[in-house]
Amino acid sequence: MSRKTGMGNLKLDKHISRQFNEDLEDIKTAMLAMGGLVEKQLEEAIYSVIEADSKLAEHIIATETKIDEMEKDIDETCITLIARRQPAATDLRLVMAVSKTIRDLERIGDEAQKIAKMAIKLTEDGHPRGYEEVRHIGSCVRKMLRDCLDAFSRFDAESAISTMLQDEQVDKDYRTAIRETITFMMEDPRSISRSMNVLWVLKSLERVGDHAKNICEQVVYLVQGRDIR
Amino acid sequence: MSRKTGMGNLKLDKHISRQFNEDLEDIKTAMLAMGGLVEKQLEEAIYSVIEADSKLAEHIIATETKIDEMEKDIDETCITLIARRQPAATDLRLVMAVSKTIRDLERIGDEAQKIAKMAIKLTEDGHPRGYEEVRHIGSCVRKMLRDCLDAFSRFDAESAISTMLQDEQVDKDYRTAIRETITFMMEDPRSISRSMNVLWVLKSLERVGDHAKNICEQVVYLVQGRDIR
Repeated sequence: MSRKTGMGNLKLDKHISRQFNEDLEDIKTAMLAMGGLVEKQLEEAIYSVIEADSKLAEHIIATETKIDEMEKDIDETCITLIARRQPAATDLRLVMAVSKTIRDLERIGDEAQKIAKMAIKLTEDGHPRGYEEVRHIGSCVRKMLRDCLDAFSRFDAESAISTMLQDEQVDKDYRTAIRETITFMMEDPRSISRSMNVLWVLKSLERVGDHAKNICEQVVYLVQGRDIR
Repeated sequence: MSRKTGMGNLKLDKHISRQFNEDLEDIKTAMLAMGGLVEKQLEEAIYSVIEADSKLAEHIIATETKIDEMEKDIDETCITLIARRQPAATDLRLVMAVSKTIRDLERIGDEAQKIAKMAIKLTEDGHPRGYEEVRHIGSCVRKMLRDCLDAFSRFDAESAISTMLQDEQVDKDYRTAIRETITFMMEDPRSISRSMNVLWVLKSLERVGDHAKNICEQVVYLVQGRDIR
């Protein structure tokens, strides 16, 4: 997944040092690379549930530490950059937005890991109904994640706002899916354990949507300088 | 809930400006005040479930915006402080730790709100079993939250580490409670809807434990300068 880097239409302060510009671009590039890995983890986690691929699920769980490492590295770079370069105004907002976004990305990685764990349980316990909902909500939140990272890469506040709005539909579909799963559990109580696994997957996906929404808020804050939380 | 403020045993850089010291103390004090309100929200949310007090639950939901406002204000103050004072080393780490901690506090506030919503549903749908578990895990995570804020207020890394370890027991008790609730649902399928409400409350409480653990990590990072995530 490659995204445009560079500072595009974001008016950064004019820097005496070219090195400073490069530092700012570097943390943005590192964040987008982390975002690309998280997208891949999420995609594979959803696939591992739907295809009952426990080998892939184990691979996802093993890769989670890589995401944690990236978060720590980027966070450390942000702090060093603030301390050494003493950025102000938009530059500082960019560093703070990156520092917050990587935290949401790391948590999306956590949710992907939880989904992968459920994929393993589902392979063991057998397949209940509810996969259509996982597929549908899964593809909605994957789109949200992709769109929010694109919006960040292009500093596109308008696109960030329209991506945020997708979360309402995700929440709606999530509530419907939960209701259906519960109805199914009542009709066939023997399926309760298995259906609970699907329910936790849906819950994780809904949280991914929340985190993507948080990232959108950071983009708007960064570009427009107003906090829309 | 009043906590010791001041900079205690944390060796901050020597400042030429006394005003700077005061600014640093102010953001810490504001963060602890926000923490106090979040503690109260959580306590009342748990109480509203156990006592089926939907009036209290509605009050909690209405107060959530206050927490959001506090987060925005403190975050804005942190950014202004970095831009104007250009802190380095420990000072900067303190500001960054506050900025991250208020985000976890805000999310604990979100969970309290979700618990309050479930309290209202439980009052409508009737009481299932599982309240003992809510009471027990609720009091464990309330203790974790109290302890992590105390550790932050005293810059006490050792106490933060021992508070983090409490999360393992919370996760264990949470898994047991979930298993018991599922068994109960299988024995009495008519209770499924009501039991699901309890299940979401338990899930929220487990997440509060995770956020408290994150705050502990910030305290350790701040005091010892090492990232233990």
